[in-house]
Amino acid sequence: MKTNSGRFFEDYSVGQVIRHAVPRTLSGERALYHALYPARGALYSSDEFAQACGLPGSPLDDLIVFHTVFGKTVPDVSLNAIANLGYAEGRFLAPVYACDTLSAQSEVIGLKQNSNGKSGVVYVRTTGTNQHGEAVLSYVRWVMVRKRDIDAPAPVTLVPELATVVAPGDLVVPEGLHFDSYDAELAGEPYRLCDYTVGEVIEHVDGVTVEEAEHMLATRLWQNTAKVHFDATFRPDGQRLIYGGHIISLARALSFNGLANAQMIVAINGGAHANPCFAGMTVRAWSEVLDKAETGVPGVGAIRLRLVATSGTGTVLRTQDGKYAPDVLLDLDYWALMPL
Amino acid sequence: MKTNSGRFFEDYSVGQVIRHAVPRTLSGERALYHALYPARGALYSSDEFAQACGLPGSPLDDLIVFHTVFGKTVPDVSLNAIANLGYAEGRFLAPVYACDTLSAQSEVIGLKQNSNGKSGVVYVRTTGTNQHGEAVLSYVRWVMVRKRDIDAPAPVTLVPELATVVAPGDLVVPEGLHFDSYDAELAGEPYRLCDYTVGEVIEHVDGVTVEEAEHMLATRLWQNTAKVHFDATFRPDGQRLIYGGHIISLARALSFNGLANAQMIVAINGGAHANPCFAGMTVRAWSEVLDKAETGVPGVGAIRLRLVATSGTGTVLRTQDGKYAPDVLLDLDYWALMPL
Amino acid sequence: MKTNSGRFFEDYSVGQVIRHAVPRTLSGERALYHALYPARGALYSSDEFAQACGLPGSPLDDLIVFHTVFGKTVPDVSLNAIANLGYAEGRFLAPVYACDTLSAQSEVIGLKQNSNGKSGVVYVRTTGTNQHGEAVLSYVRWVMVRKRDIDAPAPVTLVPELATVVAPGDLVVPEGLHFDSYDAELAGEPYRLCDYTVGEVIEHVDGVTVEEAEHMLATRLWQNTAKVHFDATFRPDGQRLIYGGHIISLARALSFNGLANAQMIVAINGGAHANPCFAGMTVRAWSEVLDKAETGVPGVGAIRLRLVATSGTGTVLRTQDGKYAPDVLLDLDYWALMPL
Repeated sequence: MKTNSGRFFEDYSVGQVIRHAVPRTLSGERALYHALYPARGALYSSDEFAQACGLPGSPLDDLIVFHTVFGKTVPDVSLNAIANLGYAEGRFLAPVYACDTLSAQSEVIGLKQNSNGKSGVVYVRTTGTNQHGEAVLSYVRWVMVRKRDIDAPAPVTLVPELATVVAPGDLVVPEGLHFDSYDAELAGEPYRLCDYTVGEVIEHVDGVTVEEAEHMLATRLWQNTAKVHFDATFRPDGQRLIYGGHIISLARALSFNGLANAQMIVAINGGAHANPCFAGMTVRAWSEVLDKAETGVPGVGAIRLRLVATSGTGTVLRTQDGKYAPDVLLDLDYWALMPL
Repeated sequence: MKTNSGRFFEDYSVGQVIRHAVPRTLSGERALYHALYPARGALYSSDEFAQACGLPGSPLDDLIVFHTVFGKTVPDVSLNAIANLGYAEGRFLAPVYACDTLSAQSEVIGLKQNSNGKSGVVYVRTTGTNQHGEAVLSYVRWVMVRKRDIDAPAPVTLVPELATVVAPGDLVVPEGLHFDSYDAELAGEPYRLCDYTVGEVIEHVDGVTVEEAEHMLATRLWQNTAKVHFDATFRPDGQRLIYGGHIISLARALSFNGLANAQMIVAINGGAHANPCFAGMTVRAWSEVLDKAETGVPGVGAIRLRLVATSGTGTVLRTQDGKYAPDVLLDLDYWALMPL
Repeated sequence: MKTNSGRFFEDYSVGQVIRHAVPRTLSGERALYHALYPARGALYSSDEFAQACGLPGSPLDDLIVFHTVFGKTVPDVSLNAIANLGYAEGRFLAPVYACDTLSAQSEVIGLKQNSNGKSGVVYVRTTGTNQHGEAVLSYVRWVMVRKRDIDAPAPVTLVPELATVVAPGDLVVPEGLHFDSYDAELAGEPYRLCDYTVGEVIEHVDGVTVEEAEHMLATRLWQNTAKVHFDATFRPDGQRLIYGGHIISLARALSFNGLANAQMIVAINGGAHANPCFAGMTVRAWSEVLDKAETGVPGVGAIRLRLVATSGTGTVLRTQDGKYAPDVLLDLDYWALMPL
């Protein structure tokens, strides 16, 4: 068998390092990102705006970097995954520009067999690297993976201790970035960090009805090959499950309306794909301000946001029993840089 | 409320200048344009062809420029529009190349409250500018906009006098452009300006059935955020209204077949989105030669065309009562440069 | 009539050379190719990987070159085609890079009127050329074309002698290409030419359900204007026939899983679009190793593959009567370069 049927739970061991296949030179992906998502962040749209913020040019959207790195891990980490359980300690370490080439590798940092003996949870720390060998992104992800052989012995349980939030002191502000001559009018909104209050909830107004062709174009673009996203014959109900990252990008782009100055994502503290999304749903988003911080760079603040994507309307996150409301698709906790 | 609910009629005043948000560096958009529309104009397809015509390289399609500039105006001008009523005095002032950054601003040049007191017409002159501060496009658009407060006082009525057609002497031929070594075989057709006669009608043969995913990809690409194009829950009938500019680009691309040498659009004299277009319709196009002119540049002529998009077949523009025929989607009046 | 209604059978004569219209500068097409097809070949994904293989950078996927050249021939060769009958003697002669401009011309090398007198077979040899005048691709295609005038006299029959397979000695290895420091881990699989045996069959596991929007985006991208792909009103059943080349690219991309090191297509020996493909079908692929050869370049081998796309499951090519099984969409015979 020369084809890849993916790793099963017993194929992982703590300390194992997996170099993922197919490095990727990015370039025209920016235009596609703008076609796939209603993204309007000025720093990722205009070279001149980015240069006025001290960068050499407009970087690729941070979520292009996330998806590209994530996509490379799929054949090695989640081909036999039953569920993508969580993210933690995600940090964007350097901007990525057109013509950069991204590679990815993952280290297994935890394992825990489930009590049913049929599957287990695999924790990996994935690092994306550019062609200069610089890390551009690091994050922990844990997934529930099937066992190939139900009789394979359980590994020693090791559940890594993971920070519930990236400490503000660990946020990496790109070299040279400043907001000294920040043009809020061109950015789209006047609100700076001081205009937001912790606990504030922002409904992002717009909705986007998702089509099969769109989410498949997006997911393929990231060389993510999980068949559940592409093959209508895979699920008994004939539906294609939409890649969770597609919802992250949709929701983040929708959040421009009210958070236009939350320019760069610098950390992903955690995230849950609360309910599956299918074509035909209309995705909306709302955000809650969770925290605010300084970054050490004068004028550059950080805002911690909960970003919720929903297939309904309104801003109910959980039902009375503490579970996610049935229309919640995504609950993402991240830090973004914003003018102070 | 930090989100943008858009300006209402009473928020506009004559002389007001609006700098639109989110400048945009264009580059990979050309490939997407070719995927979204059956565009084949040689000048916009090949660097070598463009260089043989005296340009430094192949510019971005003039309608990419139009859509990019138009898209920036939407959050400020037409978020609460009931109807996009017309265009006039559109002039393309300089070619735009990959890696150029476009910004846009609009000046309110006219206001007229409707007799029902619930809405009014806003006239704006929009200018698109590149990163060198050079104007690349200027056009007037007028839209009908809702009032927020029906009791807000009516402004003084000012309806600007607008030219019904851009005078040939006002057409801007890009610096250096010539057709001295024009290769009609590579361009696709042998017909020069002298081969067309005023009044001639050309049926462009091909039809394209439109899908939801396509028009949303296109409209997002131009950072046009009007929700009626994206949100299936917005209209009671569950249909998404297709951005009028999508139809302009479709029809212009279809018109290659018969007008392959109408290379560059240099002016938009007027235009009406006669009927709405929805996914599932098959769009066809026909053109009528309205006028011919010299441009002052030897060998470079101008052809004035009526471009009609239809969801039916045939070339009936209006019914006996003078109204647009029900299958007419677009009636656009423009000047293009063509070898003499 | 200024529009192109296409050539009919009696419009062709042996020796006729047709320069096809609209040269095309390629660049952002790579990102789109990755969005349209699950392509993961490392040489076409990463500049650094390609440089480690001795090339100046990552070329555009060889099938981008094929589709671009093929698309240019459609208005001149196959607008009135009843069927695309076959390919032969296809050779990729030089890699194509971003910013290269491709042109195409075809020579009529054979004609044979059908016995019914209503149509005939036209054989053309098409050559794609870059902006330096270097041939990058050459292939023979034959199509069945309608006669305009059924009473037009039959031409002298000339059926060209075509090689059933490109001889290994005629395969062109790109200048500088080597696999001396080939990183199989980054490429995605460990298998080299010596690991494959003639007769071996590989099922490529994954399936992709095709949407209308996707195949139309792809086909337009190649400036292929055949109306049967775009116009839902063209066929009585309301279905749009998917461009055969879309299936070639889909199947080739799916074949990464099991053939990740079959890096570059260097020849197309033959091919048949066995059955039509329509939106909603789920396309799968399997390959059979037909032959192996050395290329004269140390370390660079060639593998001859049968690539079959199917709308079903399994690897049955023909039914007992020798006809293609009803779920076979494509039967392509090609040579690819692979590390020895």
